[in-house]
Amino acid sequence: MGILLKNIQMLLYTEKGPVVKRDNIYIEDRIIKAIGERPDTFSEDKVIDGTDRFAIPGMINAHTHSYMAFLRNVADDLSFMDWLFGTIDPLEQKMSSEDAYWGANLAILEMMKSGTTCFNDMQMNIHQTTRAVKESGMRAVICRGLVGSGNDEAGRIRLNEAYEEREAFKDCDRLNFFLGPHAPYTCDEEYLKIVASEAKKEKMGIHIHLAESLSEMEGCAEKYHCTPIELAERCGLFDVPAIAAHCVNVNDGDLDILKEKNVSVVTNPASNMKLGNGFAPVAKMLEKGINVCLGTDGAASNNSLNMFHEMNLLSLIHKGVAKVPQCISAKEAIQIATINGAKALGLEQQIGSIEVGKKADLAIINLRTPSFMPKNNLIAGLAYSANGSEVETVIIDGTITMENRNVLTMDEERIYFEMDQILKKMGLENKVY
Amino acid sequence: MGILLKNIQMLLYTEKGPVVKRDNIYIEDRIIKAIGERPDTFSEDKVIDGTDRFAIPGMINAHTHSYMAFLRNVADDLSFMDWLFGTIDPLEQKMSSEDAYWGANLAILEMMKSGTTCFNDMQMNIHQTTRAVKESGMRAVICRGLVGSGNDEAGRIRLNEAYEEREAFKDCDRLNFFLGPHAPYTCDEEYLKIVASEAKKEKMGIHIHLAESLSEMEGCAEKYHCTPIELAERCGLFDVPAIAAHCVNVNDGDLDILKEKNVSVVTNPASNMKLGNGFAPVAKMLEKGINVCLGTDGAASNNSLNMFHEMNLLSLIHKGVAKVPQCISAKEAIQIATINGAKALGLEQQIGSIEVGKKADLAIINLRTPSFMPKNNLIAGLAYSANGSEVETVIIDGTITMENRNVLTMDEERIYFEMDQILKKMGLENKVY
Ligand SMILES: [Zn+2]
Ligand SMILES: [Zn+2]
Repeated sequence: MGILLKNIQMLLYTEKGPVVKRDNIYIEDRIIKAIGERPDTFSEDKVIDGTDRFAIPGMINAHTHSYMAFLRNVADDLSFMDWLFGTIDPLEQKMSSEDAYWGANLAILEMMKSGTTCFNDMQMNIHQTTRAVKESGMRAVICRGLVGSGNDEAGRIRLNEAYEEREAFKDCDRLNFFLGPHAPYTCDEEYLKIVASEAKKEKMGIHIHLAESLSEMEGCAEKYHCTPIELAERCGLFDVPAIAAHCVNVNDGDLDILKEKNVSVVTNPASNMKLGNGFAPVAKMLEKGINVCLGTDGAASNNSLNMFHEMNLLSLIHKGVAKVPQCISAKEAIQIATINGAKALGLEQQIGSIEVGKKADLAIINLRTPSFMPKNNLIAGLAYSANGSEVETVIIDGTITMENRNVLTMDEERIYFEMDQILKKMGLENKVY
Repeated sequence: MGILLKNIQMLLYTEKGPVVKRDNIYIEDRIIKAIGERPDTFSEDKVIDGTDRFAIPGMINAHTHSYMAFLRNVADDLSFMDWLFGTIDPLEQKMSSEDAYWGANLAILEMMKSGTTCFNDMQMNIHQTTRAVKESGMRAVICRGLVGSGNDEAGRIRLNEAYEEREAFKDCDRLNFFLGPHAPYTCDEEYLKIVASEAKKEKMGIHIHLAESLSEMEGCAEKYHCTPIELAERCGLFDVPAIAAHCVNVNDGDLDILKEKNVSVVTNPASNMKLGNGFAPVAKMLEKGINVCLGTDGAASNNSLNMFHEMNLLSLIHKGVAKVPQCISAKEAIQIATINGAKALGLEQQIGSIEVGKKADLAIINLRTPSFMPKNNLIAGLAYSANGSEVETVIIDGTITMENRNVLTMDEERIYFEMDQILKKMGLENKVY
């Protein structure tokens, strides 16, 4: 199917940084065939008029737990440990694999409706998020969350499940797989070493939570006499392509390790503030040349999976912390939310920017909304005024998955129906707040 | 016209704090006639089905400059003084009163579409924002921005304009008027004293920018050997009902003054971060019992007038600063965004909550959106997951001004057309970013 985006403004990443240019975009065979000149063989089955429209690379949510969307707004204004072990964990115990499937569907729906075309997921229930991704037309990197002590059976089972899932979905090339050791406080050193060597053997990347809360720091110092970043390094987790979520509490030595080992850091501003963990030193990371990307974390700690929301926080909070209005510009923020995520996932040759030969993963914004009026600096608009609802059309892997805000590849009403059922089952239906 | 909101969930402020309750709401003669039992004389001309809908008090944007909406996204990632004097001021010089009128229209459109039903405005062009408010069905407090030195002519003219405008619009009771001395760096001490005595004489409130940037602090210390809060007090500005916007840089003595003089503080999180001014000590203010309300500031420094966006920032950033996840709960945030604003404006008997006898100023949220799914803690949803686009219907002064996201009282396409014209006139149309 050939799709022509006709005379449309688009965000391009050039050597001089992001710029906005107006031209035609030709999409065919799942890729961006050409920008500007019509390819000889191109024939359009669909034309999208670019008047007052703005095409951007689809957002890449580099750290989330999509199945947890059914836990949105159930545990708020609590301390980190009360939140995780007092409320979220017990509710997760009541969860069936069907619940995880519908949770993932809700998350994918929300992400698609706010212009996200790829996400990096840590999940606890195999074959559910994967199934939802495959059916919905979304793109994702899936990491089976790994929890274990030494060479215990539970840890080995989870590793085997990760491989089983990768095998089961190998026919869907919108799915990729990393290993997901959960965190230094849920995996011990020996298990982390096992996971690292498995990742090396299997040529898989690593996706882990690191240096998120102060209690994690204290626990790690007490048990291992080092920082979580140092622990991860000595376990070999950084000897494969690695993604470290959070990194709120990192010292200069930690930053040196992250840079030297080419670790990508996912910053999660909403979640880090909401749980009282604070602000990651993102400006310092960027200065050091660390690849920083952006994630929402799960809906239980955000409570939104909207990357426009997250990009807005990213672009504002560090100006406030540093008292420097030039800190993390709109141009930096949009790259962090797109191409940097692609780099972290090892997919920068395929996605993350509007470029000839790359997969056609795009969000098209309707500029006839107050957020983008007057139609002036569109890049500033992305970071500072948009809320995500301006995204009108989404194309993933060359397929239109949302048009005029109708998601074509998912059953929105069914997802809402299932949410009502889950709420009843969890006994939260009539809880008064 | 009688409007029945049938079997709808609503946010009520009780002695125990905000709660969600389900019942019927009867609206007639511009007010909330009853909640629950049908009044004897009520007859409905319109029924809104409350299934999966949530009625909240309309948001009150307690500090903005609506005409500046035409300056959205024109000056970003700059220092405060470069932003104000290097970019915004010169563009404002090119502005005609028609431009201000259309700017105010754009702002009102954006606010209405995100559930704001009243705003407190400082403007520099009389008869423009007022006209836009009157025509659009919005509610506002209007403050003619006052700039002057001593008893100079310019300062006197502006004061006279404030009275002229109040007189010209006295027939529209959705409009109220305060005096708006701009700031300690644009008004000198003598002029501030004149404005204070005028406000006293005319029984008008005061709306002023105070303690926003460090350069303001330094200038005030150098010229007056005191803080901006102390200066305002000694000029008599706090002897009438007063609203102080920003208050980022306030010491304990300043907070004591604000509390003692019953001054309402408007916090503007986005603007304060974006311009590098930092974080106001909001938690401390609340602890002291100061009436804190919420504002977006103008679209030139935010760049959004969406109060859901602002409420989300308010509820997140102070948790991050204090590293305390219980800091500014969702319940506090929604009250700050509604009833506290009404108190600041002296309108708490009329607006700010869903209460029998109050004006019917409401926003109705569609819960069948990812942000509110599953339909669990709706108050948490307001602060942590909503982005404002979930607002489906808006009622102001008992009139439906927006239905199914169509604004009935304004011409949206005309506003966008005028924005294109203004951009051309300003010479920004083809500026490449
Ligand atoms: Zn996480
Ligand atoms: Zn202001």
